[in-house]
Amino acid sequence: METLFNKRLQVYVKCKDCEERKANIRVNIDLLVTSNPVYKRDLVVRLTDDVDPYFLYSLSISEEDYQSLKVQQGLLIDFASFPQKFIDLLHLCLAEQEKESPRFLLHLACQSSLHDSAAHFSVVETNAFKHLNHLSLKLLQGSDKEVKDYLATCLSSLKEDKQSLEIKLKKTEEDLSRQLAYAQQ
Amino acid sequence: METLFNKRLQVYVKCKDCEERKANIRVNIDLLVTSNPVYKRDLVVRLTDDVDPYFLYSLSISEEDYQSLKVQQGLLIDFASFPQKFIDLLHLCLAEQEKESPRFLLHLACQSSLHDSAAHFSVVETNAFKHLNHLSLKLLQGSDKEVKDYLATCLSSLKEDKQSLEIKLKKTEEDLSRQLAYAQQ
Repeated sequence: METLFNKRLQVYVKCKDCEERKANIRVNIDLLVTSNPVYKRDLVVRLTDDVDPYFLYSLSISEEDYQSLKVQQGLLIDFASFPQKFIDLLHLCLAEQEKESPRFLLHLACQSSLHDSAAHFSVVETNAFKHLNHLSLKLLQGSDKEVKDYLATCLSSLKEDKQSLEIKLKKTEEDLSRQLAYAQQ
Repeated sequence: METLFNKRLQVYVKCKDCEERKANIRVNIDLLVTSNPVYKRDLVVRLTDDVDPYFLYSLSISEEDYQSLKVQQGLLIDFASFPQKFIDLLHLCLAEQEKESPRFLLHLACQSSLHDSAAHFSVVETNAFKHLNHLSLKLLQGSDKEVKDYLATCLSSLKEDKQSLEIKLKKTEEDLSRQLAYAQQ
């Protein structure tokens, strides 16, 4: 698994029956390559929220899935070039997000009815004339099991972070106490 | 919610088709009191494993549940006295667990077939004559949703821990640097 992109981006989140809100959403793009039994590439797009552990939307795009996406969205590039093009669009949004009227925006429209937990994640350019939809991906809300697995991963990496912090704290205390003792001699 | 007990204890875990293993299991006992719409007390027993995020077994005992448990296990005390008696037994196990042949042991027998995810958690005394079962509670393995909620809580408390560590590290560095600068003058 190769992580191609992992950054927090400003996203306009609109859920059914809720006001639109601006949120910092972590966008993660992984390329999954399996060669057993057959060579297969999948692009996995995942949206999470560092402050809301239950927030998880994802989409896995195989080469075959991409063919329908390509037709449906009128894309001109092939599967191999798609990830970089998508990332370029995200970087455009990132560069614009601090501006007063950003030209590129990310939108996430959730259909939060109980039976349909899909959300459309879109890169939208706004010019003087209209909103241009550069790309719109349909993501699915994580199931209990998916959220559980995601949280277990977060927990384990956070535990590692905490451990290295503890080691660093201990080392800092020792180093500085030693230097202090030496200086006070 | 009042936490009556929360400690890691040595437990002999035996799963179907697996060797028995000794594990440090966190035993948590909470008393949940609700007064709306009616006054109600529930004792919630939860077993988790600090090193295995997916390990979760729990049992909620209401006053009514307790009546059948009392009959079934031949208990002589009422619901109000039960938690403390249970905790006393756990403390006996805790006190014995470092000994070469502990007199009180905790067992967890999991029925790990797919359709029955129950486990029996028992406090067993071993004397020269036989194994005496002091208490045996039937716990249920956490569902994906329950494990998800449990992990979200762990994550949030670990984040707080990490944050206070970061603050402590920063403060330690500042304090000691200041003292060092002063000593070196």
